[in-house]
Amino acid sequence: MLDNESALLSFLNDFAAIQSPKILIHGGGGIATKIGGKLGIESKYVKGRRITDAATLDLVSMVYGGLINKQLVTRLQDSGCNAMGFTGADGNLIKATKRPVGETDFGFVGDITPDSVNSTLLVFLLKQGIIPVFAPLTHGQGTLLNTNADTIASALATSLSMHFDVRLIYCFEKKGILKNVNDENSVITSLDKSLYEKYLSEGSFHDGILPKLENAFSAIQSGVKEILIGDAKDLSRNLGPETVGTLIKK
Amino acid sequence: MLDNESALLSFLNDFAAIQSPKILIHGGGGIATKIGGKLGIESKYVKGRRITDAATLDLVSMVYGGLINKQLVTRLQDSGCNAMGFTGADGNLIKATKRPVGETDFGFVGDITPDSVNSTLLVFLLKQGIIPVFAPLTHGQGTLLNTNADTIASALATSLSMHFDVRLIYCFEKKGILKNVNDENSVITSLDKSLYEKYLSEGSFHDGILPKLENAFSAIQSGVKEILIGDAKDLSRNLGPETVGTLIKK
Repeated sequence: MLDNESALLSFLNDFAAIQSPKILIHGGGGIATKIGGKLGIESKYVKGRRITDAATLDLVSMVYGGLINKQLVTRLQDSGCNAMGFTGADGNLIKATKRPVGETDFGFVGDITPDSVNSTLLVFLLKQGIIPVFAPLTHGQGTLLNTNADTIASALATSLSMHFDVRLIYCFEKKGILKNVNDENSVITSLDKSLYEKYLSEGSFHDGILPKLENAFSAIQSGVKEILIGDAKDLSRNLGPETVGTLIKK
Repeated sequence: MLDNESALLSFLNDFAAIQSPKILIHGGGGIATKIGGKLGIESKYVKGRRITDAATLDLVSMVYGGLINKQLVTRLQDSGCNAMGFTGADGNLIKATKRPVGETDFGFVGDITPDSVNSTLLVFLLKQGIIPVFAPLTHGQGTLLNTNADTIASALATSLSMHFDVRLIYCFEKKGILKNVNDENSVITSLDKSLYEKYLSEGSFHDGILPKLENAFSAIQSGVKEILIGDAKDLSRNLGPETVGTLIKK
């Protein structure tokens, strides 16, 4: 969506209109790959995860922390939304551990838990009416680190659930979790743990969605009140008690 | 200095050791030019000022707002300094006016005055122990804008002079303002308005330093208590009442 000007503006208007305290977490892997190509920085992946060597760390620092983050902040400011852009290094908001080298050396990748979040400062900023916009970067051992945006969203939501009733909304390109991956109209509108386990045992879910679901139920167990998985285009319809995506509850 | 690893680390350690509330404003034109070259974005200048077309705006957003700003923040965090990186768009901290097209179209360049600074939020952050680190970017009319770092420093200092006794320190590669540009040991250690005008009438100053000096005396007239122009390497020797650079007072 970051590459689609009109979809992005529409999403940012919907986001700006949310009345309660809110945080935006963005990605940008596609744009990083494109700019990396021009700079001669090859994107390497193992099991779908980017390998972050020193050149790639510079690339994602520029693209996530500068280009995308600041464009989002500027546009939100233009929509009357007092956005402020962050990486996890800023104000020590998210302190990560560099992933230990195992079978694969992922390079400058940061692993986090909800305890990694400086929620005191975050709550303080939210109470000032600041709208935090997070790039998918953390820091640790004196360096920026690349961290998956979904993981950051989950850690922030869990950490803030001690202070707020949090709804964590994952925006992607489908209307929600589909019971039948080939049928866009088979959205599961509500999912609790027992129904999740029933569908799981029936093999209903597409493999690609399983990490997101596992992550979601872990966040729910850790205190996040509600999780919504839905289409970015449906954001404004996924804010209240009636939703069109998949609402996950404990 | 941003290109010189050991000089940079030494400077950041000196900066981190400053005990009073402090703000760092950085540039990065040299690195932007280098990365722009790899991306095929040509750097164009008129009278020493960069022309910021759309591609150059993306370039400086990446390099100033992402790469350099976040590296400085991360390193300061590692030195125990609670740094937080900003452009003028973040929290609407510096709202600029896009420079009107005159004889030259400078493109996405922002003009500012001390009134452009959201000093309420800035003071509030400083009182929380946050150390702001500013990239030379502002915003206005829905876009990021490129703004000279010296100009931002002067506007921030003037705006904050209503709340603090401000010392504005310009760090460059000479020990201070030289009475004789060919003699590194001819530093003018103290300069007030009358001495400035005397030297000016004698033609003592090198042309290149005149804009900095005019800027400095304008800031002093607007409430900044002291201005120091000196070598980045001498930062720790330019913080107290005894200084080795050029101290400018009203």
